[in-house]
Amino acid sequence: MRIEVICTGDEVLTGKIVNTNFNYITQKLEDVGLAVVWETTVGDDRNDLLLAFQLAASRADAVIVNGGLGPTVDDLSQEIAARAAGVDLCLNEEWMQRMEAFFRRRSRVMPPNNRKQAMLPAGSEILDNPVGTACGFAVDIGRARFFFTPGVPRELRRMLEDQIIPRLLARTGLQAAIFLKRFHSYGIGESHADALLAGIEEIDPDHSVKLGFRAHYPQLETKLTVRGKDKEDVRRRLEPVEREVRRRFGNFILAEDDQTLERVVLDALIARDASLALVEMFTSGQIAMRLVPLPGAQAVVRRGVVSLALPQIAAGIGLAQDAFTGGVTRQSAEAAAEAARIQAGASHALAVLTDLDEGSDRIDFGASICLAIASEEGAVSRRSRIVGGRDWVRLGAVELGLDCLRRYLQGLPIDERIDFEKSETRAGG
Amino acid sequence: MRIEVICTGDEVLTGKIVNTNFNYITQKLEDVGLAVVWETTVGDDRNDLLLAFQLAASRADAVIVNGGLGPTVDDLSQEIAARAAGVDLCLNEEWMQRMEAFFRRRSRVMPPNNRKQAMLPAGSEILDNPVGTACGFAVDIGRARFFFTPGVPRELRRMLEDQIIPRLLARTGLQAAIFLKRFHSYGIGESHADALLAGIEEIDPDHSVKLGFRAHYPQLETKLTVRGKDKEDVRRRLEPVEREVRRRFGNFILAEDDQTLERVVLDALIARDASLALVEMFTSGQIAMRLVPLPGAQAVVRRGVVSLALPQIAAGIGLAQDAFTGGVTRQSAEAAAEAARIQAGASHALAVLTDLDEGSDRIDFGASICLAIASEEGAVSRRSRIVGGRDWVRLGAVELGLDCLRRYLQGLPIDERIDFEKSETRAGG
Repeated sequence: MRIEVICTGDEVLTGKIVNTNFNYITQKLEDVGLAVVWETTVGDDRNDLLLAFQLAASRADAVIVNGGLGPTVDDLSQEIAARAAGVDLCLNEEWMQRMEAFFRRRSRVMPPNNRKQAMLPAGSEILDNPVGTACGFAVDIGRARFFFTPGVPRELRRMLEDQIIPRLLARTGLQAAIFLKRFHSYGIGESHADALLAGIEEIDPDHSVKLGFRAHYPQLETKLTVRGKDKEDVRRRLEPVEREVRRRFGNFILAEDDQTLERVVLDALIARDASLALVEMFTSGQIAMRLVPLPGAQAVVRRGVVSLALPQIAAGIGLAQDAFTGGVTRQSAEAAAEAARIQAGASHALAVLTDLDEGSDRIDFGASICLAIASEEGAVSRRSRIVGGRDWVRLGAVELGLDCLRRYLQGLPIDERIDFEKSETRAGG
Repeated sequence: MRIEVICTGDEVLTGKIVNTNFNYITQKLEDVGLAVVWETTVGDDRNDLLLAFQLAASRADAVIVNGGLGPTVDDLSQEIAARAAGVDLCLNEEWMQRMEAFFRRRSRVMPPNNRKQAMLPAGSEILDNPVGTACGFAVDIGRARFFFTPGVPRELRRMLEDQIIPRLLARTGLQAAIFLKRFHSYGIGESHADALLAGIEEIDPDHSVKLGFRAHYPQLETKLTVRGKDKEDVRRRLEPVEREVRRRFGNFILAEDDQTLERVVLDALIARDASLALVEMFTSGQIAMRLVPLPGAQAVVRRGVVSLALPQIAAGIGLAQDAFTGGVTRQSAEAAAEAARIQAGASHALAVLTDLDEGSDRIDFGASICLAIASEEGAVSRRSRIVGGRDWVRLGAVELGLDCLRRYLQGLPIDERIDFEKSETRAGG
């Protein structure tokens, strides 16, 4: 099935906003095994919209159009869809009532120009939008089925997942039950992960499990797309593959599906009634920033101290200014974590100290990172060298700190070799 | 002039990467008064590429093609360009020598498959790429001039600015000297800014100054695009308009052109040999994160303390745990800033305390923010209420804190009303 996407709107075409909707649409379709082969962006212009619809209608089997369903005069999608389909625009009574109810629930009267949102090409099928007033619809133009969606991201997302993807899958004749299983890891590069998981698709004899990756440094997302007759069939096919991924990735899996590393860490702390103190240098508060905004963090994250200077850190956690005369070492990190833990009255503390290379930023700019985790049972630490420029090093240090804390709380070793560190200085510290 | 953009590559089409190159191209063209009217994304597929080139060649005057100039087999732009133009691919000796020199400077031998990058459609004009091996080129296809650019962002940027925009402007017959002046502000909404600057374009009698905005909350970017005969002409036209923008925006302009708020703040501190301590609550280290990574911050930013709990903050800056029994008030903020300043041995301190609304996140979720700045001359403070959901409030509190520090260091009032705060609680605290 040949699928195209048409994005509309002057905001997107002039670069006022980045077109993340297209990215979302194409990723979601990929996840269920559908491929977008052509994308077009046009502005709020009648001639260009009509031409874009006609061209797509002549080439594609299915077309997803995003944007142009609003109440204002520059929202033209229904009008041009009707012209391209050669039909009239008709008031859809069902959607009018839905909109009136929508405004009534908010104790407001529907403005007259919202009526425009219920004008659909004759013969359209409504695509429900439970979170807004823009009415999605599907209609045939030329040889293609067109699906019209709102530009507001959360409205688009709901409609795509609930309404459009099931219809596309039904048209392809692909099996109805599809499931996407995701593993998040830190410390394994994409090509290494690919090699580690070699042959994993063959575990399912019908090859209904497909492996994919999405790298967003420092984390890697590993995806298993599974097709089956029904949910039970999908579960049965997925289970042995899932087990094998867990076995091969081992301790490197930090979260699955919608979970995040920071949420996993916070939940592990909550589960044991623990609390946390943080000491950060070059990570500049980014570790605190990952944890503090989460619901439930208030009772757990006691305090963070940020400074680039060791004497300042020492003073900030109640040590003498010359406590770290040895510089950034594993011993300094352990002492910092333990002092911060005691000073904040916390059960746990994480200290991430960084010794930056000299000179200006460059691709081989790096840092030696000494991190330590302290608890009532004492302190553990790790030394690691990361290179790749200032921003890269900072991202890596944040992730390494959080992931070692996750490992510690889960009873796993914190010093397993990761793909992103340089080996030359591992013996140091 | 009708300009189209064609983006190529499976990575973009499948959503593996977000297409920021298109966003960049269209913004840069907008900035010099050129408009992109149509964008197409296709994968690394010969038929789709050829069709996309042919369609654009039949509609446009100029086409910018991005991607597909690399050395690997899936890089097809030159091959398909030659087919669409009906000419042969020929080895460009000049570019071959350039590439060989490029590798020689890096003490490497050029791999044989790089030769492909010097194969251009007959009759092409080279577009120089001083930062990579991909050879940009321009060639006529149908009625349009095609400009082929590399997918690597920094190579694209250089080529677009140095090579392509001047050629496009020459083709339009628009005046050659164009300048973009930018003002960054915080606290004025886009529609308010639009009203404040009403009529400003008329200051230049020839209407050669064009006003535009780009809102990226919490900051607003105000742009003046100026055309003239030459640099002197541009400067003469811009000067009175620029002066008037400064007069009308007044203290709200926080930076101009490539400057940033955090850089302005840091430079103001450096200029007076000052140093800084930070106290953060709900901003979670984000104020520290804006300042600490900047070159020169090490000598200035002494220490930051982050916690959601007032007793933890008190203890972290050397006060008694019950120092803030009155809760989040202007007095607490002033006491926190002063204590942090003294404890860190800094000349200045910024404390941003936040009292969050109860309940879960929602669109009218808000917070009362009390911030204070302490120096050897004492402390000043401000209370403000911001609503709009947790993330919105956090972004606003970070910006308000940094901007008030900027105002303080520049000798400006820190309590001017901003558009993003609610007035009902301004009397409080």
